[in-house]
Amino acid sequence: MRQLMLGQRLAQELDVELMGSGGFALEQLMELAGLSVACAIAAVWPVATRLLVVCGPGNNGGDGLVAARHLLHFGYHPTVLYPKAPKDSGTGIFYKNLLTQLEKIDVPVLDTTPETLSKDNYDVVVDAVFGFSFSPSGGIRAPFDVVMDRMKTTELPIASIDIPSGWDVEKGDEAGDGLRPAMLVSLTAPKLCAAHFTGEHHFLGGRFLPPNMREKYNLTDLPPFEGTAQCVRLESDVCRI
Amino acid sequence: MRQLMLGQRLAQELDVELMGSGGFALEQLMELAGLSVACAIAAVWPVATRLLVVCGPGNNGGDGLVAARHLLHFGYHPTVLYPKAPKDSGTGIFYKNLLTQLEKIDVPVLDTTPETLSKDNYDVVVDAVFGFSFSPSGGIRAPFDVVMDRMKTTELPIASIDIPSGWDVEKGDEAGDGLRPAMLVSLTAPKLCAAHFTGEHHFLGGRFLPPNMREKYNLTDLPPFEGTAQCVRLESDVCRI
Repeated sequence: MRQLMLGQRLAQELDVELMGSGGFALEQLMELAGLSVACAIAAVWPVATRLLVVCGPGNNGGDGLVAARHLLHFGYHPTVLYPKAPKDSGTGIFYKNLLTQLEKIDVPVLDTTPETLSKDNYDVVVDAVFGFSFSPSGGIRAPFDVVMDRMKTTELPIASIDIPSGWDVEKGDEAGDGLRPAMLVSLTAPKLCAAHFTGEHHFLGGRFLPPNMREKYNLTDLPPFEGTAQCVRLESDVCRI
Repeated sequence: MRQLMLGQRLAQELDVELMGSGGFALEQLMELAGLSVACAIAAVWPVATRLLVVCGPGNNGGDGLVAARHLLHFGYHPTVLYPKAPKDSGTGIFYKNLLTQLEKIDVPVLDTTPETLSKDNYDVVVDAVFGFSFSPSGGIRAPFDVVMDRMKTTELPIASIDIPSGWDVEKGDEAGDGLRPAMLVSLTAPKLCAAHFTGEHHFLGGRFLPPNMREKYNLTDLPPFEGTAQCVRLESDVCRI
């Protein structure tokens, strides 16, 4: 059977395998994931687009920080919103360093949500708040409740990294009042919620999955990356179930 | 004055600055450097080219290991020669993990130099032996003496990462009996020895230098990277002095 999407458990297993027996460091995978997100955004919106990159406290937010850096190098105008300060230990130190890298290239980093998200200040919102570890059962807590509310009502197009934030990783937006992103960049493989994505632009990024893992996780029917590209556009019928 | 090349001291300073106050991890920079090398090679040789990637004991060798991984994903046939086993501490652990990543995608890793480097077994040799920390005054020690000798006499084209191995970082091949690479991929900026490079293909890779560092190190006249490309071809007159 053709299986092109991963459930939450398999997505976590794949991640653990890459960084365990696969020998990858988080710094490597996040660099490639964030770069692929930047490349996908560059395939949709023109240079000099003003982007608000909203970053959550985990790895999805880290992908956003990396993407913002590459987008600056590509000629875009990113602003980062990082509402929750990283910890002084563990992965928090890496996130702090990612923020330092942004400061060094003069990317503005905000810690409070702008009053309005409109065409007056930005063109696109990049949603890097929650990833495939998120569960909507716990609700969305401060300080992310404010920005999630504003993202739900903004007139601006939203580009979500891996998961539209707030969605159930497998069932999508069950309550029906969640984000409606115009773009989704799935990393390594679409998660099951991608079947409910109805936006215009769906890309696959994260070009680092070993061929034998593609087989093991039944992902061999995903479209191949072309040449040296770090992302590939997915047709809208790829993730229907 | 237009200054497009770095001496050994400035190259080391730039590296220290990126990983010090710049906040970068070696894992990030090496991932981007290696990726840019793979992209440059893909701009010159067609898919399925058989590559022997000869990796030294330091960061230049690490760039080679990363490049080999991306080249496999791009459809090339890399074999890695890693003559000196990495240590069990410090950066050695990272190099071991880079080797693990290659084993997981079935890239052959050799520890002894093939008897011949010819069209019978390979199409191109990627030279990732020594980088900008090398000094020829110490001579080339085992186990790299054997492979360096074979690289000097091979009929195959050589693609050097950052520095043609064995060259003086600033003065080039003073003895006149060193490598004559067909390709050079300079990382972040050409080093002074690039003025003596006479091969056909010169690329700039390592797209991560903050704009203010480009100014500080007088590198603003280097050609810009286009779009989302991780490398850019340098014209042959860029590095004449």
